[in-house]
Amino acid sequence: MMHQGTHFLQIPGPSPVPADVLAATGRQVIDHRGPEFGELGSKLLRDIKKIFKTQHDVVIFPASGTGAWEAALANLFSPGDRIATFETGHFASLWSRMAIKLGLKPTTLGTNWRAGADPAVIEDALRQDRNHEIRAVCIVHNETSTGSTSRLADIRAAIDAANHPALFVVDTISGLASADLRMDEWGIDVVVSGSQKGLMLPPGLSFNAVGPKALEASKAGGMPRSYWDWSEMIAINKSGYFPYTPATNLLFGLSLVLDKLLDEGLEAVFARHERLAEATRRAVQAWGLENLCNSPIHYSPVLTTVMMPEGHSADAYRRIALEKFNMSLGSGLSKVADKVFRIGHLGNINELTLAGTLAGCEMSLDLAGVPHQRGGVDVAMKYLAETA
Amino acid sequence: MMHQGTHFLQIPGPSPVPADVLAATGRQVIDHRGPEFGELGSKLLRDIKKIFKTQHDVVIFPASGTGAWEAALANLFSPGDRIATFETGHFASLWSRMAIKLGLKPTTLGTNWRAGADPAVIEDALRQDRNHEIRAVCIVHNETSTGSTSRLADIRAAIDAANHPALFVVDTISGLASADLRMDEWGIDVVVSGSQKGLMLPPGLSFNAVGPKALEASKAGGMPRSYWDWSEMIAINKSGYFPYTPATNLLFGLSLVLDKLLDEGLEAVFARHERLAEATRRAVQAWGLENLCNSPIHYSPVLTTVMMPEGHSADAYRRIALEKFNMSLGSGLSKVADKVFRIGHLGNINELTLAGTLAGCEMSLDLAGVPHQRGGVDVAMKYLAETA
Amino acid sequence: MMHQGTHFLQIPGPSPVPADVLAATGRQVIDHRGPEFGELGSKLLRDIKKIFKTQHDVVIFPASGTGAWEAALANLFSPGDRIATFETGHFASLWSRMAIKLGLKPTTLGTNWRAGADPAVIEDALRQDRNHEIRAVCIVHNETSTGSTSRLADIRAAIDAANHPALFVVDTISGLASADLRMDEWGIDVVVSGSQKGLMLPPGLSFNAVGPKALEASKAGGMPRSYWDWSEMIAINKSGYFPYTPATNLLFGLSLVLDKLLDEGLEAVFARHERLAEATRRAVQAWGLENLCNSPIHYSPVLTTVMMPEGHSADAYRRIALEKFNMSLGSGLSKVADKVFRIGHLGNINELTLAGTLAGCEMSLDLAGVPHQRGGVDVAMKYLAETA
Amino acid sequence: MMHQGTHFLQIPGPSPVPADVLAATGRQVIDHRGPEFGELGSKLLRDIKKIFKTQHDVVIFPASGTGAWEAALANLFSPGDRIATFETGHFASLWSRMAIKLGLKPTTLGTNWRAGADPAVIEDALRQDRNHEIRAVCIVHNETSTGSTSRLADIRAAIDAANHPALFVVDTISGLASADLRMDEWGIDVVVSGSQKGLMLPPGLSFNAVGPKALEASKAGGMPRSYWDWSEMIAINKSGYFPYTPATNLLFGLSLVLDKLLDEGLEAVFARHERLAEATRRAVQAWGLENLCNSPIHYSPVLTTVMMPEGHSADAYRRIALEKFNMSLGSGLSKVADKVFRIGHLGNINELTLAGTLAGCEMSLDLAGVPHQRGGVDVAMKYLAETA
Repeated sequence: MMHQGTHFLQIPGPSPVPADVLAATGRQVIDHRGPEFGELGSKLLRDIKKIFKTQHDVVIFPASGTGAWEAALANLFSPGDRIATFETGHFASLWSRMAIKLGLKPTTLGTNWRAGADPAVIEDALRQDRNHEIRAVCIVHNETSTGSTSRLADIRAAIDAANHPALFVVDTISGLASADLRMDEWGIDVVVSGSQKGLMLPPGLSFNAVGPKALEASKAGGMPRSYWDWSEMIAINKSGYFPYTPATNLLFGLSLVLDKLLDEGLEAVFARHERLAEATRRAVQAWGLENLCNSPIHYSPVLTTVMMPEGHSADAYRRIALEKFNMSLGSGLSKVADKVFRIGHLGNINELTLAGTLAGCEMSLDLAGVPHQRGGVDVAMKYLAETA
Repeated sequence: MMHQGTHFLQIPGPSPVPADVLAATGRQVIDHRGPEFGELGSKLLRDIKKIFKTQHDVVIFPASGTGAWEAALANLFSPGDRIATFETGHFASLWSRMAIKLGLKPTTLGTNWRAGADPAVIEDALRQDRNHEIRAVCIVHNETSTGSTSRLADIRAAIDAANHPALFVVDTISGLASADLRMDEWGIDVVVSGSQKGLMLPPGLSFNAVGPKALEASKAGGMPRSYWDWSEMIAINKSGYFPYTPATNLLFGLSLVLDKLLDEGLEAVFARHERLAEATRRAVQAWGLENLCNSPIHYSPVLTTVMMPEGHSADAYRRIALEKFNMSLGSGLSKVADKVFRIGHLGNINELTLAGTLAGCEMSLDLAGVPHQRGGVDVAMKYLAETA
Repeated sequence: MMHQGTHFLQIPGPSPVPADVLAATGRQVIDHRGPEFGELGSKLLRDIKKIFKTQHDVVIFPASGTGAWEAALANLFSPGDRIATFETGHFASLWSRMAIKLGLKPTTLGTNWRAGADPAVIEDALRQDRNHEIRAVCIVHNETSTGSTSRLADIRAAIDAANHPALFVVDTISGLASADLRMDEWGIDVVVSGSQKGLMLPPGLSFNAVGPKALEASKAGGMPRSYWDWSEMIAINKSGYFPYTPATNLLFGLSLVLDKLLDEGLEAVFARHERLAEATRRAVQAWGLENLCNSPIHYSPVLTTVMMPEGHSADAYRRIALEKFNMSLGSGLSKVADKVFRIGHLGNINELTLAGTLAGCEMSLDLAGVPHQRGGVDVAMKYLAETA
Repeated sequence: MMHQGTHFLQIPGPSPVPADVLAATGRQVIDHRGPEFGELGSKLLRDIKKIFKTQHDVVIFPASGTGAWEAALANLFSPGDRIATFETGHFASLWSRMAIKLGLKPTTLGTNWRAGADPAVIEDALRQDRNHEIRAVCIVHNETSTGSTSRLADIRAAIDAANHPALFVVDTISGLASADLRMDEWGIDVVVSGSQKGLMLPPGLSFNAVGPKALEASKAGGMPRSYWDWSEMIAINKSGYFPYTPATNLLFGLSLVLDKLLDEGLEAVFARHERLAEATRRAVQAWGLENLCNSPIHYSPVLTTVMMPEGHSADAYRRIALEKFNMSLGSGLSKVADKVFRIGHLGNINELTLAGTLAGCEMSLDLAGVPHQRGGVDVAMKYLAETA
């Protein structure tokens, strides 16, 4: 099967990389111990903080987001430590599973694949934890498997209301630079993220933004660790360098992406995502299909997960979109496998790419014989024109 | 005004260049007299013939399409020579104007900016030219300013019916590799084309495909010429080289483009263009707007030119499309300036890019306050799904 | 300070990436769960084995080489386990330090920064380890800090002679695809490597080639681990996919690099490195300077480390090379800091790039006032011409 | 024959394009009638003047340098016009041959393939032209076939001394941005140039810088012309646009190249070329070989042409350099075919690339069995170090 024209990569990440960013990652590699590198490193270690809205250190690993998950756990906790999680979907579940593999004892406070984490449940659990055995509350900000975005400020308030000393650890791998995140204002102790979503980079870089309470905890404890160790990173980063060979070419791209995001302005970036997400949801509703996320306050600006009508295979549908229209959609994962498909609308995206995406979805519904109403693209266009 | 996401370059050429072709043009330049170049030149001079459907020589100039126009005239005609043209639009008119500047005497046999050249008119004029003073019939295959495609086989038949020895010279700058062209089968003596349309390359290369009758004419006459001279080109091309420095990096791209087009298959390429053009026309009709081309047999597979309702500025409309939706549309040229806009649907294009384009057009109609019916994108999607 | 022309990146890695490989890494990212990715993954997981000369699995991490060190240790050993190392230089020492951080008990059997690991010392130590407490012999194949290459076949023979069951674990981060390595033939249980040296890729990928005995050990034990875990990788790799988001764009590059290396032929690649290394050593000798490696059987084909005459700063010298001649040389690390400089001659290198490099070294010796004989480049050219 | 490592493209143009410039030419094409293009065009039409050291218009053609030759002749002269030339080599001769093809009557005032044009000869000829029939003196600034650079200020003085009204027309295709050229100060009426030499771009752009006297002459006369016509270009260029489709992607590159050259500073660029040229000449002399240019005041900063000893084939020698060392050298053209080879040292070049180049030349002399003295690279290094 030969495809013509531009591939529509509309999975919820990796998201399409802008052409100039791809070009930047294709620069010749440089000496990671030379003066030019030091300037590059200092510049981007300074600017990346603005993306996390923090004054504290952001550690950059040459690794996938999964690595940054492990880094956060390894620096903070010791085998046997208890942490509290909230299962908002497959990735929250995977992170919890990783914690178990690393010897921790995660407690799932609640499970809801159709909304964000529930602050009331968290508050309640923390209040009951009189001995303060729970070392941390670990929350996935934007659950990539479902399209729900947890409200971090409310969760912070819940922890405070319970008067509990737990660390607040957040995974925003698919949320960073798409959904607002205010590390310092919201009192987040560690933020985990990756390069291949809102940062519009290829996969291969990941991040731990580390607040002072977390840094202290890591100094006092944590697991035996080397690659993921914050302390050596932070020490050497002071001069713009890294303790081991960094993924230099992704850093070239990161430097450019930071310029682009800060030029557009983070609030404008968030507003753009919100608007395209709203257009997408209106299309889904017009089709008569259901959003997996059924809690409007948790709708994701990054992706929308659509439930397939009973008796229809989401994967067969996605195959049609790929074969007939050269578009990749995200699959349902784990317990929603084949039951949902996910539309990514993040990163380097604009109105017309979204319109093409929704047209591809609508035509594929038709071709797949999925019961639906026409007119989703129409409704989306109406909204986009009104808000142009 | 800062734009996010992919620019939709929907002018009727230059058309968007595929990423791998851009990368090919970005290879380091090589010695144009070395052995590697000879292999490249031989390969592409052989393959380019297939695109013109000819067994004869195709001359490649480092020049825009305008240069290849001049080349055809300079090799074939002497000052004072009469040629016959048909004004199908602005570019036919410009070519005629160039002929005048070069000292030729072009006769415009007919003018119709809303259809292709009329074979009956041509036949009639040739019959009346009893002394065979008309040296050539010069026709624009696909008129980029209007979206009409002339039927070359019919024009060939008209020349034959008139039993006239005129050369048949065709400009298919915007038609090549989008609209079928059969140089040898249709008895075309010279075909003029360029790189930046259906060939999906940046501008900077242009072509003269030269049949035997034309070559003979050029040997007997033509203007004083050097850069455009066919004879030296053809002689040196035998070994894969060029008489002066070629545009090497565009040739790297051309080599790849030829592979891609021949892999897809020319007939599949034409069918893809026809289908996307039909979808576009259905959208235009649904909007209640008029196609500048009012002759269905001449509808262009490359672009569709839309007439603005009286009292509305096409240029103001295009400005909205650019500013609000990051999409470039083609302007009206010369006597239809500000009265029409042109939608390019050529080259490296597929269904979803077209859907995004039409969505941009429809939303811009709304924002510009142009009276229209909604539903154009809907109608286009319906057609695209049915024919998927 | 503005530099013109091509930068000479002559550190012992990251090595200059060929232009076509950079272009490959600059392709648009694809869906890591789609069918195109599966084909890519299957192809490269098959071909990478040839580079390690193994029939067994090669695990690819989105990580620096340092991560692959950790992966090997984490999969094989449990806290408290004893391993034997040989300190051939800074990197062997760092690996040992990492083992300590991870809770292992490394024993340094010997230290020699001027030669490869001594098989006799290893054999002796293993013989004395009557209870077989030493779980593994961990050796750096090509010590990047000194330019010594250990003879792995001899070390294998030493382990066999001692009739000891220790695993044989080898780091060839800077040796892969430059110095011969025969994993299966030499009975190596785990090989650790990275992308940015002989593989001519940007940094960001690393490897564990895993033999059956190692795989068994990892199933029985190892540390708590998740990101580095072999078992999930190997299971999912069967279909060409990865358990978490891979560094897709580096994999595009890897696929091309494998084609290039296998086209040239591994033995030709090794011979090219040996020849350029010999030319370099002859230049160093002609200058009257000393190679840090004083054992000819351990000379590295990858880099040559040059000792500065007493009282002269290697770093000041390197600064001159950078500022005056736009060339990066490797610095002395740890206990040879400022006392040596390192010339990388690996990867995408040929005779003339080496000649330029040696010219830069020789001119910088002059400018830095380092006592030396002229004529090093001359001697190197003589050798290169004789062996052309 | 498979080559490894970087190709040394040491012909006197096309010269190697810097990686960032290649990347710039690989940007997606834009609408040549849109606002972004207008800004680009205005910027580069302004900056290109600085490279010619002129206040007047610089016309940019999508064409090779040969096209710009034709443009100058076509705008200035009418068939039958007399022009005076000086045959400094093959390219001066070709330009003259073009003039004949275009119907002009060129007179060759003198022939010297071993030096620049002789001002005394020119002055004498102009004095004898009492009726001022000579319309122009056409001089090749840097003769790419021989490596001689004519002294334009002296020729200007000769024309003035003869009190002759002839236009002064200069081809600096291979001299621009390598050898100083001061169009306005030296009273040059038209300067012809191209993109692929000192401008470090791929071939495909060429230039006519047009002074007021030339512009007047073109308005009063010239040949029938269209593509090459200055007047329409200059008129439309006022707004940053072009009368026909420009080679947009080369203009992206040109914009960057202008920034780079103006950042380095033209005088620094010239000094860099002079220094590398002097190093090359010293190497040639040390080899005991002869420079084709035997007039030191005319030595070219762009290339050095080396005469092969009697009985030795320059082409066989060049083949060895290509096959054994992956280096392209320039061939002898026309009457010096196979008798000389040419070393390009222009554009994006620095000391170490030159050292590699000279090493390749010296080793190839050895392999080809050409009688010579060793030590050329040594001598060049000595000079480069002294002047570092």
